[in-house]
Amino acid sequence: MKSYMEVLRATKHKVRGHRLAPMKEQMKVFETLDENLMPDMYGTGSVIESFQNQMAEVLGKEASVFFPSGTMAQQIALRIWCDREKNKKVAYHPLCHLEIHEQDGLKELHGIKTVLLGDKERLFTLEDLVHLGQVAVVLFELPQREIGGQLPSWTDLVEMVMYLKSRGIHTHLDGARLFECLPYYEKSAQEVCELFDSVYISFYKGLAGVTGAILAGEKAFTEKSKVWKRRHGGDLYHLYPYVVTASHAYELRKDRMQGYYEQAVEYASKLSQVEGIKILPEVPVCNMFHVHFNERADDVTGQLIKVMESSDVALFGGLQNRANGLAKAEIYIGDEYGLIGDEKIDRAIAELKQIGISANQKRG
Amino acid sequence: MKSYMEVLRATKHKVRGHRLAPMKEQMKVFETLDENLMPDMYGTGSVIESFQNQMAEVLGKEASVFFPSGTMAQQIALRIWCDREKNKKVAYHPLCHLEIHEQDGLKELHGIKTVLLGDKERLFTLEDLVHLGQVAVVLFELPQREIGGQLPSWTDLVEMVMYLKSRGIHTHLDGARLFECLPYYEKSAQEVCELFDSVYISFYKGLAGVTGAILAGEKAFTEKSKVWKRRHGGDLYHLYPYVVTASHAYELRKDRMQGYYEQAVEYASKLSQVEGIKILPEVPVCNMFHVHFNERADDVTGQLIKVMESSDVALFGGLQNRANGLAKAEIYIGDEYGLIGDEKIDRAIAELKQIGISANQKRG
Repeated sequence: MKSYMEVLRATKHKVRGHRLAPMKEQMKVFETLDENLMPDMYGTGSVIESFQNQMAEVLGKEASVFFPSGTMAQQIALRIWCDREKNKKVAYHPLCHLEIHEQDGLKELHGIKTVLLGDKERLFTLEDLVHLGQVAVVLFELPQREIGGQLPSWTDLVEMVMYLKSRGIHTHLDGARLFECLPYYEKSAQEVCELFDSVYISFYKGLAGVTGAILAGEKAFTEKSKVWKRRHGGDLYHLYPYVVTASHAYELRKDRMQGYYEQAVEYASKLSQVEGIKILPEVPVCNMFHVHFNERADDVTGQLIKVMESSDVALFGGLQNRANGLAKAEIYIGDEYGLIGDEKIDRAIAELKQIGISANQKRG
Repeated sequence: MKSYMEVLRATKHKVRGHRLAPMKEQMKVFETLDENLMPDMYGTGSVIESFQNQMAEVLGKEASVFFPSGTMAQQIALRIWCDREKNKKVAYHPLCHLEIHEQDGLKELHGIKTVLLGDKERLFTLEDLVHLGQVAVVLFELPQREIGGQLPSWTDLVEMVMYLKSRGIHTHLDGARLFECLPYYEKSAQEVCELFDSVYISFYKGLAGVTGAILAGEKAFTEKSKVWKRRHGGDLYHLYPYVVTASHAYELRKDRMQGYYEQAVEYASKLSQVEGIKILPEVPVCNMFHVHFNERADDVTGQLIKVMESSDVALFGGLQNRANGLAKAEIYIGDEYGLIGDEKIDRAIAELKQIGISANQKRG
């Protein structure tokens, strides 16, 4: 019998954000480029500088620097605030990208100690901050990916940031999915970023660029970040393959976020009608959410395979186990959802309802 | 009056390695790519793995890892040897890339102390190594760029490496220009790399790729380097824009190194006939050498501008000042030299001879 992942790969229609395009297609944007345009060199040149200026304006910051990765950009941001405060402690959510996906680069390369705020399963709150000792900077991740893309209310967010300011603690925004949460807040990127001393955004999540990130803040901050970028080995000879495609992806998708968000709300509502499935957060606040199954992964794959094979629609991507041993899936809405169309998705959900998600039903 | 750099930029024919191509031209290789080929993802996928395997074979090492930059690759290599030996000291030439071009990343990020071997103005020798205290690793840069691309003789090189091995000190090769020095040694890349525990090569110097580097060694070493690559923020979502172009550049130029070398020897010989110019090393040992002027930069630019304006050939690139205040220029031979052709170059040199290089002649 084929495995869940094998069937998933073979399924034609996948609810999975954006389709991963072949290399040739991703680089097609260069075919239409003016043939005289010259590459950037070690962070200088109009191709990179003009994009940095544009992004600084979009984010309402004095300056911005293009980085090959957010991993590099964010470690550097936190390091600069630590140096500024002569305090090598930062605080963030227990499931922060730096804590779980970066092989402890922040600790191993920068010797920075981290304080985990609140609890894994929820957003941190003002109360968590009140109990926090003095740190140089607090990192906010909007939305908080690992718990289904949850967001604090705007009022709570502002209150937390103002509280930290009053204590002389810097704030940094992990805005890898910043544009994705603007529709819920009904704010511009500038209005959100204004709260924070520094901001990082990514170009290959919701925007589906190739690779790359922007770090923005005051000029004194971004100039320091360039020195650290060189130290990290990120001041590349040419960054234009990422810059040009990031710019293209940004222009193409920046105005689609409202649509992704509405589709996420709609899709979550449809899935929530299947018995044995719970949606987190109950009503999505951006283009992503988590699906919690009331069964272990091994006990649901059989049913999900049946649905994929008969409908040629994959309602979920890979499955993970939660702390309690039960399965979860991350849903991320991008261009693909609209391309599949309601009819196919509704039919697949109807089949899933009929087959039933729970192991009991399967055995019954 | 126009400045030296302005005239240089406006001059049609430049002796400068390779012409810097516009972005569109650099990315043209993707137009001919099979349209189904998929990107690498975080260091996995056939496009990156097959190139890493090929390069491991070319370098005669068990495995290799593609990095966005040599700055990142080499800091990591040295860090791994330091950790292995529980000794945070490394030794290298005083003008090593890590010492002068990387904003002290090795010290600031890895807390590694450096010992400078011998003297700025010459290669280090066995005697320098004999006086060296215990370090984890010694870095060899072949050729030693900042002093005109000098190389130790093969016998001296082997003797130094064997001596270090006998003391249990690791050896790392900065092979940013490895292929460029093979003609002089009359050795294969494998034969040179066999001497060293780890090797880094670059794709955008003599090979004129877009950006990127390979770090090679035993599998246990390269696997560790992948963890550090993630920590540095170099484990990018997609590296294929650099990998595909590096592969293309390697295939295109790997067999041109003998030609570049011979042209460098020829060009150096021609320039050495101009009074007031000295070549370092007297006879080049790879495709590069330095030109030492017997005048300060300000006192030669007038003459060099005249030659550029009348011949439309720039015999030199940017000028730098040496420690003694007199000017030097770095010559790096690539595709451009052959494209300009002997006739134009000879005519420009003849003009330079006639005008004269020295300030006295100018004033006389």
